[in-house]
Amino acid sequence: MIERLAVIGVGLIGGSLARALRREGVVGEVVGCGRALANLEQAVELGVIDRFTQRPDEAVAGADMVFVAVPLGAMRGVFSAISDRLDPGAVVTDGGSVKGSVVADAMAAFKGVPPSLVPGHPIAGTECSGVEASFAELYENRRVILTPLPETDPDALSRVTAMWETCGAEVTCMSVAHHDEVLAATSHLPHMLAFGLVDSLARMRENDAIFRYAAGGFRDFTRIASSNPVMWRDICLANREALSAMLARFGVEMTDLAESIRRADGEHLLEIFERAKSARDRYVDSAR
Amino acid sequence: MIERLAVIGVGLIGGSLARALRREGVVGEVVGCGRALANLEQAVELGVIDRFTQRPDEAVAGADMVFVAVPLGAMRGVFSAISDRLDPGAVVTDGGSVKGSVVADAMAAFKGVPPSLVPGHPIAGTECSGVEASFAELYENRRVILTPLPETDPDALSRVTAMWETCGAEVTCMSVAHHDEVLAATSHLPHMLAFGLVDSLARMRENDAIFRYAAGGFRDFTRIASSNPVMWRDICLANREALSAMLARFGVEMTDLAESIRRADGEHLLEIFERAKSARDRYVDSAR
Ligand SMILES: NC(=O)c1ccc[n+]([C@@H]2O[C@H](COP(=O)([O-])OP(=O)(O)OC[C@H]3O[C@@H](n4cnc5c(N)ncnc54)[C@H](OP(=O)(O)O)[C@@H]3O)[C@@H](O)[C@H]2O)c1
Ligand SMILES: NC(=O)c1ccc[n+]([C@@H]2O[C@H](COP(=O)([O-])OP(=O)(O)OC[C@H]3O[C@@H](n4cnc5c(N)ncnc54)[C@H](OP(=O)(O)O)[C@@H]3O)[C@@H](O)[C@H]2O)c1
Repeated sequence: MIERLAVIGVGLIGGSLARALRREGVVGEVVGCGRALANLEQAVELGVIDRFTQRPDEAVAGADMVFVAVPLGAMRGVFSAISDRLDPGAVVTDGGSVKGSVVADAMAAFKGVPPSLVPGHPIAGTECSGVEASFAELYENRRVILTPLPETDPDALSRVTAMWETCGAEVTCMSVAHHDEVLAATSHLPHMLAFGLVDSLARMRENDAIFRYAAGGFRDFTRIASSNPVMWRDICLANREALSAMLARFGVEMTDLAESIRRADGEHLLEIFERAKSARDRYVDSAR
Repeated sequence: MIERLAVIGVGLIGGSLARALRREGVVGEVVGCGRALANLEQAVELGVIDRFTQRPDEAVAGADMVFVAVPLGAMRGVFSAISDRLDPGAVVTDGGSVKGSVVADAMAAFKGVPPSLVPGHPIAGTECSGVEASFAELYENRRVILTPLPETDPDALSRVTAMWETCGAEVTCMSVAHHDEVLAATSHLPHMLAFGLVDSLARMRENDAIFRYAAGGFRDFTRIASSNPVMWRDICLANREALSAMLARFGVEMTDLAESIRRADGEHLLEIFERAKSARDRYVDSAR
């Protein structure tokens, strides 16, 4: 049971956590925090939070669980604002898409690793933002990755694990560096390809015709290019190293593919496409 | 009304056309043609075709409409087999994803452009193949591009147009070269990115973990990597020039993006992502 949950950043990720915990009846009071009044007022109307403040330090007063779900670029400021205002015994966790930067931000703000900090990342989301996009089912049957540090209090870890399990998620732990590499490959790189593809088509002379003849596959393929640009700028900056490495690896793959097309090497193309198809089919089967 | 329709290649595309025309009651007899007996027998069982032969020249005997829906690499062989066996007055059209190569294949087989040939391409499909994947609704509210040549008989063009409209499709005409460029951008390039991405992840050391933590967006983004590898090898070879140009354009875009990440140029990244998001959102709105 969480007595008082503080949600800093009441958007898709923060709002959905509050909704899920409320639906399960495992939270007493939910205090929201953000900058725009309209979003916070809507959060109260929707029953996602009980009350709000625009000051993170006020939001965490008396909270036994603090969930920070602001864009990565705002993490350090939030941590600095709350670092000496937390209740003893309060657990702090977050939903940021990159973990190395969040840990660095926390260390800078808290002057060291706070044992009550459990860095986390729910592998769930949509391309929509704000509290109105949030829904209680977002985390059902999804994975949440926690990246506890050597200093992390085991009790804090188990409280955060239990919180996510209550939302229907499956919790896995891994190191910060491994998380950032895996996510660079499976999420950050695909987003770069989708943004890059749509942008390069949008910049073509006859881009109206181009988009007019795009088929169904194009809609699915580019869905993630409708994601929040600020959030993605922050992710790129926060996960620069791992993402740059993945982009370079992908660049080598595409150079090889382009070369095979230029020299009409059908055999090599077939090999690439078959390997990709069987990996994708295996992935979908195992995700069932 | 079509008295006798010959479908050479009774797979997703050919089977779906036959189903749609039958449902509308605008076709007398449907003769199927392919290599594997099992697929053809299944096509009869499913009621997609009335009878079959494994010889294209036999299939077109007495047909007033011939639809060629084999992989691009098999087009030339089919055209050669039927070139002097067509009924006078028969119209020939196809569903190949690249039009330049189909026209070249037809010219080689027919020794010139046959006036009865109407090259075409339905902008509809799924990642599945074979007659069992076919369905009558595939072409509803989808576009079909026809690329008539100066030599094309206007009556043949209008018969093919009417046939597709009966299936619920909207028909547009454009030049062969324009078709191949537009499709390189909206379909062939995205497929290369999806195949390339999945292949480069599949080749990573810890690829099990990689795929395990892929989220919902990944499934949609990579759906097209489950497409038929032979069909895509053929498309790459058939549309080499336009696709190479698009790959080069995309390469420049990605180099710029990777450079911006490396030098932490958040402003430029935001500009790219915002332009892409607004183009993608506009595309989805206009597709509604
Ligand atoms: N969307 C996804 O698919 C996804 C998935 C997993 C993890 N994440 C991570 O989850 C976090 C939140 O993403 P989201 O999708 O929920 O975004 P969102 O819907 O835009 O929500 C973010 C919320 O944070 C608030 N906020 C922004 N700056 C703030 C600040 N300085 N102080 C307090 N509140 C602030 C925003 O409200 P105001 O603008 O009114 O302040 C907004 O309501 C990000 O770190 C992201 O990387 C996202
Ligand atoms: N799938 C799409 O999304 C899509 C969309 C638009 C256009 N197209 C185009 O449509 C055409 C067919 O694609 P599809 O998706 O329908 O593929 P499919 O489901 O694999 O069907 C192709 C059919 O052609 C037959 N075939 C192959 N080689 C042949 C030959 N030499 N002689 C006679 N039949 C032969 C195959 O049967 P056997 O192996 O038994 O011969 C198979 O039933 C391709 O040119 C493709 O570029 C596809």
